[in-house]
Amino acid sequence: MSDIREFIRAGRAEYKATLIVSGGTLVNVASGEIYPTDVAVYKDRIVAVGDVSEYRGPETEMIDATGHFLCPGLIDGHLHVECSKMSVTSFAKAVVPLGTTSIVSGLDQILVVSGLEGAREFLDEAKGTPLKIFWGAPCKTPYTLPRSNVGYYFGPDDHRATHSWPECVGIWETVREFVDTMDEHVLQAVEIAEKSRLPILGCSPMCRGNRLNSYLQAGVRSDHESYTADEMLEKLRKGMHVVIRESSISHFLEENLRIVTEMGIGATNRISFCTDDVVASDILGRGHLDNMIRMAVAMGVPPLTAIQMATINGAEALRIGQKVGSISPGLAADILLVKDIGDFRVSAVIAKGRLAARDGRLVDDLAPPARSALVTDTFKLAPVSREDLLVRAHAAGDKAPVLTIAVTPEQIFVRTQRDVVLPVRDGYVEADPSQDVQYLTVVERYGRTSNRPVAFASGFGLRSGALATSTAPDDNNIVCLGTNPDDMALAINHIIENNGGQVVTDGGRIVSFLPLPIGGIVSDLDPPEMAKKELELDDAARALGCTLPWPFMYMFVLQITAIPDFAMTDLGLIDCVNLKVVNPLKQAS
Amino acid sequence: MSDIREFIRAGRAEYKATLIVSGGTLVNVASGEIYPTDVAVYKDRIVAVGDVSEYRGPETEMIDATGHFLCPGLIDGHLHVECSKMSVTSFAKAVVPLGTTSIVSGLDQILVVSGLEGAREFLDEAKGTPLKIFWGAPCKTPYTLPRSNVGYYFGPDDHRATHSWPECVGIWETVREFVDTMDEHVLQAVEIAEKSRLPILGCSPMCRGNRLNSYLQAGVRSDHESYTADEMLEKLRKGMHVVIRESSISHFLEENLRIVTEMGIGATNRISFCTDDVVASDILGRGHLDNMIRMAVAMGVPPLTAIQMATINGAEALRIGQKVGSISPGLAADILLVKDIGDFRVSAVIAKGRLAARDGRLVDDLAPPARSALVTDTFKLAPVSREDLLVRAHAAGDKAPVLTIAVTPEQIFVRTQRDVVLPVRDGYVEADPSQDVQYLTVVERYGRTSNRPVAFASGFGLRSGALATSTAPDDNNIVCLGTNPDDMALAINHIIENNGGQVVTDGGRIVSFLPLPIGGIVSDLDPPEMAKKELELDDAARALGCTLPWPFMYMFVLQITAIPDFAMTDLGLIDCVNLKVVNPLKQAS
Repeated sequence: MSDIREFIRAGRAEYKATLIVSGGTLVNVASGEIYPTDVAVYKDRIVAVGDVSEYRGPETEMIDATGHFLCPGLIDGHLHVECSKMSVTSFAKAVVPLGTTSIVSGLDQILVVSGLEGAREFLDEAKGTPLKIFWGAPCKTPYTLPRSNVGYYFGPDDHRATHSWPECVGIWETVREFVDTMDEHVLQAVEIAEKSRLPILGCSPMCRGNRLNSYLQAGVRSDHESYTADEMLEKLRKGMHVVIRESSISHFLEENLRIVTEMGIGATNRISFCTDDVVASDILGRGHLDNMIRMAVAMGVPPLTAIQMATINGAEALRIGQKVGSISPGLAADILLVKDIGDFRVSAVIAKGRLAARDGRLVDDLAPPARSALVTDTFKLAPVSREDLLVRAHAAGDKAPVLTIAVTPEQIFVRTQRDVVLPVRDGYVEADPSQDVQYLTVVERYGRTSNRPVAFASGFGLRSGALATSTAPDDNNIVCLGTNPDDMALAINHIIENNGGQVVTDGGRIVSFLPLPIGGIVSDLDPPEMAKKELELDDAARALGCTLPWPFMYMFVLQITAIPDFAMTDLGLIDCVNLKVVNPLKQAS
Repeated sequence: MSDIREFIRAGRAEYKATLIVSGGTLVNVASGEIYPTDVAVYKDRIVAVGDVSEYRGPETEMIDATGHFLCPGLIDGHLHVECSKMSVTSFAKAVVPLGTTSIVSGLDQILVVSGLEGAREFLDEAKGTPLKIFWGAPCKTPYTLPRSNVGYYFGPDDHRATHSWPECVGIWETVREFVDTMDEHVLQAVEIAEKSRLPILGCSPMCRGNRLNSYLQAGVRSDHESYTADEMLEKLRKGMHVVIRESSISHFLEENLRIVTEMGIGATNRISFCTDDVVASDILGRGHLDNMIRMAVAMGVPPLTAIQMATINGAEALRIGQKVGSISPGLAADILLVKDIGDFRVSAVIAKGRLAARDGRLVDDLAPPARSALVTDTFKLAPVSREDLLVRAHAAGDKAPVLTIAVTPEQIFVRTQRDVVLPVRDGYVEADPSQDVQYLTVVERYGRTSNRPVAFASGFGLRSGALATSTAPDDNNIVCLGTNPDDMALAINHIIENNGGQVVTDGGRIVSFLPLPIGGIVSDLDPPEMAKKELELDDAARALGCTLPWPFMYMFVLQITAIPDFAMTDLGLIDCVNLKVVNPLKQAS
């Protein structure tokens, strides 16, 4: 960013515009109007809107927007960017051509791996792309309860250290349970944020009534987790800025927008959009925020209103409206050219003051940056052996009663208890694919504990081989599910050797592998390549009998203790209701 | 403010409500709806909205709101509170019964007199009243150009020192000319504010086109100075939050609101209200923000929309929506009971969680606090003599050509040049009431320079005696206008002796006097008393021939160099167009 004085001069046409967009029709999300206008840009900022003739100089680049609407660049109000498995650079390649020019991310996944410097490296990476990242400082990481082991614990001291980062927009993902249990570190973060004048961005799924009243006492400004329109309406009525999530997994838009299309809410300015978790195939298939606009319009929301939800409403909720969210003098020059604002397909994207994409393609190649060892060398553990993965039986006998964590095809965010009886051989309890029971382990990989508890899972349908992933929030320890310790050890060790990835092994062979060498969680693959690899991995898992619609997504979320009723972390099998570690081997009755 | 943990507990009814308002109809300014609901309060905060039965305990005070609407307390988005000549306590007495529970003030007048500690004392005073003061740190004080002499200069170091004050909401009154001339201290303040994450609150009357484009490069978020609806629309379209001013002097509401009633702007959420400068008689006569709501409704603005402009819209523009502006859990318990939201007369005011007023009267007496010498002993100068006020002629002869600063009855904010020829006696140029020309002096009173330049004014019509005031932004030096040096010296010395006030003298007598012993600018008088004294002073001035509609308001604004074409400060007669001191005595032709 250049000096303010330079822009004050450019604002009065003392320096000529670097770029002028002429002949377009402005979608003015601030005044709620649509009318023809021109826009002048100087470097990365909008300097004039309206009659810009005085701003034109001999060097001014001209973009003819005749026949197009001009919309502000779209803002994703809440996104775990690393969960796309794409690096910041790859993610920019995926979404910028679709009109997304700003994302708000906690970078909570790289934080647990590489700490502040890792997050800083990702933020700096964005500077080399057309994409802006605003950063929400996670209330604390990891979010797991009880707290699992990770590379870096982000706590109150980190809040003090990072609230001054220019990208910082607030406290991120302020989980309701932390407030309710008065988690000391989270409440400290809230108090630090008040001093830093940063908003508290919430996370309160299915929170209503007195629980919501209590949660709001922490000063929580927004929420992106309304499972129903009624829930969203209650949050809006109680003063929250509500954010509609349409992720690759959770499809909330149509339900949430009923508050506008059916329940008559006209005060739409406190409603905005986010995608939270998205994968490459979904972005390439449905789109990103542009898709949310199209979906909203298809439901009957006026295009201008839908565009406001994807731009200025989120900017104001996040208090970044002085930087992005509208086409106004002084703001970032992030401008979309769109032929039809109902069927919102972006013809051209101007980002950071330069033409970044046309007709769905980036104008320039984006080369990923050189990366430090801090993010490329993140596996601090020795290989495991098959013996490391055996489960010794409690008692003599050839059978053991076991509690398994059971996933279901219908509901990725519900896991239940399934009790089974497993065979015991040579003193070890064994998985039993014939009962759809596999071994499940999480291997601590940051050199802190070398924990690698082994439990049992069911519902996957895997009949042979093993699946493993090193990207798996909130810990990004190595999760491995398998039918036998040999293929599991192979899968885990392959990930360790390659500094991260997702892998399918079978019969002592690597069947499919997606390298994720950056933090063990993301890759510089181009988005279509990533989508292809994801498909291959899931196909490989299905070929081994896995019956789930999306095998690796189920693997991905196994460490999340916010999902009832069970999770698996490096501490062991977690009872997510009572927030404690449980022994999968039950006392023999 | 109690601990956040206490409110989290109260939010889940673990501690019972201290007060419940039941049976009312909520004006939900966040969701844009109106429906019946109950509200529970714990100490100074709203803890629950909706079904509050679980919050009721044996000690809970109950307020029956049957037949009433519940509205959030009103917010004055920009107000020079000291310019009312009422202390914070007196001002609270005036406006709280009318529903104003929050004001946003720069305290720029007490700052120039008593510095940071003086402002702090005023902010702390508010804690003893039902009124909240949010504080905007003035971009710099004094605002005069060239800079006049005052008790305290507020500059970049003060911004660094005060941005952490909890009441601070941003940079206040960021005068366009300072940005345009790239005033180093103001631009530094803007840069400090960005680091402090505080918004830049503007001041850009009649600013449009390229000048507005340039001004906005400083990141200015809001403006309260639109002289016309067209100007306001342009500011709104260019991304500003626009604030409608209806002061005692400038009546902008009806003109500004044409953007809604005639020009079709539906996006009213970025429009809010302020009164800027108000006097007691106006508040007692027309009302305060309640009057603005009534005026807006009378123009055809829906009551809910008008109430949003007086509450949540300003709160969001000022980024204090997490504290005030809606009836939401976690926010301040500032709640109004109103029978008819069209004819907005406030039946009862709950402020800071307690019943503060009923039927236009405060429930409790408000005693002013003890005050420090810092604000009660602010006149650091010796008495003046008649000789001090004589104007020595440049040249021999019995006549002198003189430039006078001419006020006009029609336009308080326009002052022109009127050239006259004045008599010279014993080498001194004399005022000449027969030509409607009086002496005019500003006496520096902070012990910095002892400046007391004497010039000549016309347009007042004063035929005898003198008028003086020590409240007069932006400097609050002593302004005195008179027909003869004796009455002027008497007026000035009376103010000095009494540590401030407004006075009319004639024939060696004090004819009328309003003591303003707090900073020389405000008083603890009750609002009706203040209104009566103001009337008396103006009547006394008129009895001496003054023909202006509002003699002391014209006196009050004489030091403001932002008013074209001339002003008078302790530096002398100011050419406000060329921003320089001019000699009133012209070279004889």
